[in-house]
Amino acid sequence: MLRRCVSRLRTPGALCCPLAGAPPPARDSWSPPRSYSSEVVHVDHSLPNPSWSKDMRLIFYQFMKKSEDGSWKRLPSYRFTSSKRLEEVKIFFPDAKPVKEEPLSQARVFPRSLEEGLGFEYAMFYNHVENRTVCILQGGPYLQGVPGFLHGGAIATMIDSTVGMCALKTGRTVMTANLNINFRRPIPLCSVVVINSQLDKIEGRKLFVSCSVRSVDEKTLYSEATSLFVKLDPKKSSP
Amino acid sequence: MLRRCVSRLRTPGALCCPLAGAPPPARDSWSPPRSYSSEVVHVDHSLPNPSWSKDMRLIFYQFMKKSEDGSWKRLPSYRFTSSKRLEEVKIFFPDAKPVKEEPLSQARVFPRSLEEGLGFEYAMFYNHVENRTVCILQGGPYLQGVPGFLHGGAIATMIDSTVGMCALKTGRTVMTANLNINFRRPIPLCSVVVINSQLDKIEGRKLFVSCSVRSVDEKTLYSEATSLFVKLDPKKSSP
Repeated sequence: MLRRCVSRLRTPGALCCPLAGAPPPARDSWSPPRSYSSEVVHVDHSLPNPSWSKDMRLIFYQFMKKSEDGSWKRLPSYRFTSSKRLEEVKIFFPDAKPVKEEPLSQARVFPRSLEEGLGFEYAMFYNHVENRTVCILQGGPYLQGVPGFLHGGAIATMIDSTVGMCALKTGRTVMTANLNINFRRPIPLCSVVVINSQLDKIEGRKLFVSCSVRSVDEKTLYSEATSLFVKLDPKKSSP
Repeated sequence: MLRRCVSRLRTPGALCCPLAGAPPPARDSWSPPRSYSSEVVHVDHSLPNPSWSKDMRLIFYQFMKKSEDGSWKRLPSYRFTSSKRLEEVKIFFPDAKPVKEEPLSQARVFPRSLEEGLGFEYAMFYNHVENRTVCILQGGPYLQGVPGFLHGGAIATMIDSTVGMCALKTGRTVMTANLNINFRRPIPLCSVVVINSQLDKIEGRKLFVSCSVRSVDEKTLYSEATSLFVKLDPKKSSP
């Protein structure tokens, strides 16, 4: 889907708009829980927290060490995005409007929507020389597919996020056109995996990015994926 | 990933095991929120609730009407799965164990992990004559990618769930081997889409399933996908 470099989104602020269009009668009395309201919106969630396992911390600090000479850079990650981005999106998809234009005060970035330790615990690092993005992921108990293992959609979500980050660091405003995933082995729930993505080539407005998902010791290949991103052209209403 | 017909999982029960392996010192004092504990584990979440929009209810009742003659059947959907399934998984992947064997009492089925109205609101219907599964989906505000639109991973999650259901209704215990998604248009947050999947062919242990994601009025094609599933053979340790 459509992306833009989140590392540039330092401005705190929640995107806002209602849950749906003109509310039907059945929804009049319903409103979503507002437990999110107390969060400070500019919290960087890609830093260690008490739910991180030993493996997660180990790999994280390995990449922090690599970042000391500037070859790698940790990418911050927020639960909310600036409402300014909605205006940017309209340039490319003027007819693909949200259900209602009003602010969606409840909106959260999907991979950061679950509470600490329950869903996606992850951190990303980018190497601008090699055009690579690495994501270290600890999939929590709310990401279950078959008992004891991650749901395929959870894996797809983090693959999409990682290759997307790799593409947008090169292509600025890009859109996922294709995502092709081969699932080799199920990933144990609560384990740590490393998603290693790289920009393979650029052809005009097309960016080709691939990735692998492996265990921390690199011995187990869980998944592989290829993806195609398209740089959006502000002069056109769609890619 | 690995699946088995959830429609047969009528036995209430939460899968249980700890959040990770031997807890590192940093995690000793941490425990996840236990707000889930009060839920009755056998609640069927594929029925209308106050967060459902007018469009969602409209399509739901259209399919309920179609179900009256038995050609379509609504598929129930639960937040928790039976711990018995963990034993089944071990048959196929004896070396792919969860981080720890003990019960994961916090585990939730990923698409049902968010609270009512915030994440995936969906219902599935199956047509056994045509080998088709239809999913009606209302993507809530916690599924955001680019502001105002669904995250690509959220779309992939429901595509994976829908084609997976279509495959396992034919193939019993199956595993997703490949998922190939073409994203055509971004999906507005809080809108309703229809995922229409069908079993295309069977070749030995391979099942080929495709799907489309369209707007309620069918005029907008948001995504298309193909998938490959493999029937698991209990005599082999991996597919």
